[in-house]
Amino acid sequence: MMPLPGSDLENLVVVLVRARNPLNIGAAARAMSNFGCSTLRLVNPYKLAFRDARSAVGGASLLQTAEEFDTVPSAIADCGLVIGTTAVGSRSLEQTVRFLDDETGGMIRERLPEEKVAFLFGSEKTGLSNKDFSYCQWLLKIPTSDQNISMNLGQAVAVCMYELARTRVQQPAKEITPANAGELDKITSCLMDSLRLSGYVKPGTDELFEKKARQLILRMGLEAYDAKLLLGMVRQILWKLQQPKN
Amino acid sequence: MMPLPGSDLENLVVVLVRARNPLNIGAAARAMSNFGCSTLRLVNPYKLAFRDARSAVGGASLLQTAEEFDTVPSAIADCGLVIGTTAVGSRSLEQTVRFLDDETGGMIRERLPEEKVAFLFGSEKTGLSNKDFSYCQWLLKIPTSDQNISMNLGQAVAVCMYELARTRVQQPAKEITPANAGELDKITSCLMDSLRLSGYVKPGTDELFEKKARQLILRMGLEAYDAKLLLGMVRQILWKLQQPKN
Repeated sequence: MMPLPGSDLENLVVVLVRARNPLNIGAAARAMSNFGCSTLRLVNPYKLAFRDARSAVGGASLLQTAEEFDTVPSAIADCGLVIGTTAVGSRSLEQTVRFLDDETGGMIRERLPEEKVAFLFGSEKTGLSNKDFSYCQWLLKIPTSDQNISMNLGQAVAVCMYELARTRVQQPAKEITPANAGELDKITSCLMDSLRLSGYVKPGTDELFEKKARQLILRMGLEAYDAKLLLGMVRQILWKLQQPKN
Repeated sequence: MMPLPGSDLENLVVVLVRARNPLNIGAAARAMSNFGCSTLRLVNPYKLAFRDARSAVGGASLLQTAEEFDTVPSAIADCGLVIGTTAVGSRSLEQTVRFLDDETGGMIRERLPEEKVAFLFGSEKTGLSNKDFSYCQWLLKIPTSDQNISMNLGQAVAVCMYELARTRVQQPAKEITPANAGELDKITSCLMDSLRLSGYVKPGTDELFEKKARQLILRMGLEAYDAKLLLGMVRQILWKLQQPKN
């Protein structure tokens, strides 16, 4: 009767970061299932919450295959586009904050056939941290009323899934393979080591510069080929910096 | 920063018919509040459920003003358009079943400034009855995956509110100053010197790698700010590589 939205959301990865409430984990899973998205990852969930959600009667089967991770970067390593959700539109100045709408949805739908796209949702109480945000290419805000910007986790997931599952777009033929987050993380890591060894990073500013460097690398929008090229360069430079001179 | 969707949904009336679960009633109220809809009506709610939902900590204030009715027709008496939600697209042959999408949303949004529009949601277990449907001009189905058509009540309300509150918001425009060619050339030049000193560029391949490096930098599409940042990093690394070690 109608096209299955499911096929479109195969590459979508929902990442719940520090989820506390088993009902919310279950609700997120149910909404994913409603719209044909099956990959759920949890970063540091409260163990009891995850166990309770898994054992709940009627719990979506995708909870059984949900994977647990200790860190955000490990949970998104294979993803080409990483989007952090936020209730506050102006929290970060470093990243583009987009409102969820047909246009933004379309941009994401265009990427989905090509690569894994991660949607990060933070804990019910505090949302995502600035550190979590630093792994994201975009931040995304559901356009809520100013009187009540804070959405329930399961409902926010449902709204995002609905928007992403909406009508197919004409897919442009693009032969670009974007770099995945794991490759970009390696570049950032080698670059940071080189910057430390060269004295660019002053003591005590390490964390600040790591965020800066990571965002810089993300903004480059590297393709897989370019990421490999750049990583090779930075690795060789780092190796040289580590050599004792005689 | 953005138009309040709230003003659009003043004429929207959400009617929960025979809702059984206080959590779901509360969740529906929260989603309404997120999108600026404030009129909630309940037809024959389980009394205990309604009382519990009302007294829940953090319960949306619109639960306090929610009205109770004994019948569907009394709850929708002042509404010009009555829409029944259903998980099953083909349940009734008598009425038009429309999928919730931008077009259907647009038809409803057009009516909202003129008249009250009622959205009926049935009980969690059985949905709306055929009798309930008989009061509806349209039936509406959220386009879910065929594998799991049954949505949680609060999530279904959230998705409908999101679609109805949709406005063409202007995405916040970012003022981008692209880096100029001179800046990019300096980056390329420092990078090449670093690559030579680190042994990445083998003798005789200099020209080839300079092209590669320049193209790589160009493909990054750097903004002026990022170009300055990257140049500072590469310069410092180059300076360090040039230092004699002792």
